[in-house]
Amino acid sequence: MSVNALVSKIREKNNPTVAGLDARLEYIPDHITEKYVAEYGKTLKAAAASMMEFNKGLIDALCDIVPAIKPQAAYYELLGPEGAIVLRDTIAYAHEKGMYVIADIKRNDIGATATAYAQAYLGRSEVCGESLPVYDSDSCTVNAYLGTDGINPFLTECKNRDKGIYVLVKTSNKSSGEFQNRLMGDQPLYVRMAEKVAEWGEDLMTECGYSQVGAVVGATYPEEQKIIRKIIPHSYFLVPGYGAQGATAKDIANAFNDDGLGAIVNSSRGIMCAWKKCDLDYQEAARQEAIRMRDDIVSAIR
Amino acid sequence: MSVNALVSKIREKNNPTVAGLDARLEYIPDHITEKYVAEYGKTLKAAAASMMEFNKGLIDALCDIVPAIKPQAAYYELLGPEGAIVLRDTIAYAHEKGMYVIADIKRNDIGATATAYAQAYLGRSEVCGESLPVYDSDSCTVNAYLGTDGINPFLTECKNRDKGIYVLVKTSNKSSGEFQNRLMGDQPLYVRMAEKVAEWGEDLMTECGYSQVGAVVGATYPEEQKIIRKIIPHSYFLVPGYGAQGATAKDIANAFNDDGLGAIVNSSRGIMCAWKKCDLDYQEAARQEAIRMRDDIVSAIR
Repeated sequence: MSVNALVSKIREKNNPTVAGLDARLEYIPDHITEKYVAEYGKTLKAAAASMMEFNKGLIDALCDIVPAIKPQAAYYELLGPEGAIVLRDTIAYAHEKGMYVIADIKRNDIGATATAYAQAYLGRSEVCGESLPVYDSDSCTVNAYLGTDGINPFLTECKNRDKGIYVLVKTSNKSSGEFQNRLMGDQPLYVRMAEKVAEWGEDLMTECGYSQVGAVVGATYPEEQKIIRKIIPHSYFLVPGYGAQGATAKDIANAFNDDGLGAIVNSSRGIMCAWKKCDLDYQEAARQEAIRMRDDIVSAIR
Repeated sequence: MSVNALVSKIREKNNPTVAGLDARLEYIPDHITEKYVAEYGKTLKAAAASMMEFNKGLIDALCDIVPAIKPQAAYYELLGPEGAIVLRDTIAYAHEKGMYVIADIKRNDIGATATAYAQAYLGRSEVCGESLPVYDSDSCTVNAYLGTDGINPFLTECKNRDKGIYVLVKTSNKSSGEFQNRLMGDQPLYVRMAEKVAEWGEDLMTECGYSQVGAVVGATYPEEQKIIRKIIPHSYFLVPGYGAQGATAKDIANAFNDDGLGAIVNSSRGIMCAWKKCDLDYQEAARQEAIRMRDDIVSAIR
């Protein structure tokens, strides 16, 4: 599924947001976890089974109003191989329900190894001439500290399979400026990174006017967002940091182009833990919060 | 297992090298793959079972002469959840055989998420009060584009569990200079990164005179190695690029301190594919190549 498909879904649902699915046990209502702990004991298998039920429930509750999900790989890896199964099956389930999937993996390596990552998350695995899907996401996040030859294998998958990447440009965390905002010549590193994103994305433009090569730009840095928006007008921004990390809809307005497109805003904890702040069950609470977030953001970018 | 234990093993075996275990199907002799394809078909399960047998055979052949292994996560991920099982079990098997393990994962994320990665690879997973091992490596590689708050969670695991990290400073690939060698003020980015590594490693010094915080410095850039060696004399270098990537033992000499310590040199393809270049079985071929590599490097750093 390409950035074109994402844009269609965003337009159709009038909702430029993505539900982050962090596989954190403390986000799951007790009645789910208790059921699987009773069956499998206090094991990674019980944690994984709980997560799978919770993810499916969230996807069911959100799929008609939210265009995309973003599973965060770290939390699945923390559940070991059982977590890898949940990651794979969550992506497949979201696809069944028509959602676009961003695998938040922030991978990076030298060319040959980057090829393996690109094939694992966007492409296919070759076993004795048989071509098999693995995690089969629509897009993933990547880190480009290693330069172009660690990115090229991802671009190949984008081209051959109509997939996308989001390159870390300016991250949402407090210390992101330590390297990203230091001057490299007369411009900060994040600007140099954005310039490369423009280059990498040039040959991967799609009908909707956006490239398959996007950027991760934290909601917590509205000034940098404005600068990056100008350097890469044709790249989609994946914007973390809304809600739990402190950014408001107003902070995010700079990430969008005048066409009201160009960015997709993530919320993980806000949606997953909405049930903790009200009397609704977790599905209805997640849905209400997703609607509130949609309206909040749509009103800020008008 | 700390960097202290690694140094003891290096001294005991007089061998500052690490066997890279890339789970690539094309590296495995046909008779192994054919057996599992006959059993499971052309599936990821067959690929994973082949890899597990091959890895065990390599570890058996190398464990008395080589101090460490470095599984490259990308190739295990390319085999999906079945590959995650092979990664976990390969690490456990290497530990049974007394080897030090470097999980080559190059992970990075914001603080909370970096905590999940640090716990998955160096620490433990908490399930309803039960503390469970996951991949349980001795050390891992990390990318620090996000700055200190993406590194801190790894430092916590290093401190609490006597583990180590290797921060990407100057990578071995061709385009590594694109960002890493660009000037940030009056010094290139890789120098700025090395300065941070010094800072992060300060509180994690061990008896052997080296910190738990090491650096990845490619064998393919001997000049940069010399500069980085001076900035972080107390950090262990993980040195990729020997052999298949073109660097020779002479290129690597700069990575070592005068005590003959301070670096561990990786070879993956050279050892894993040694059987393709001779009439020996894969185990004996890997062993011969590991001995040749050891002698080559030891003679260059004398």
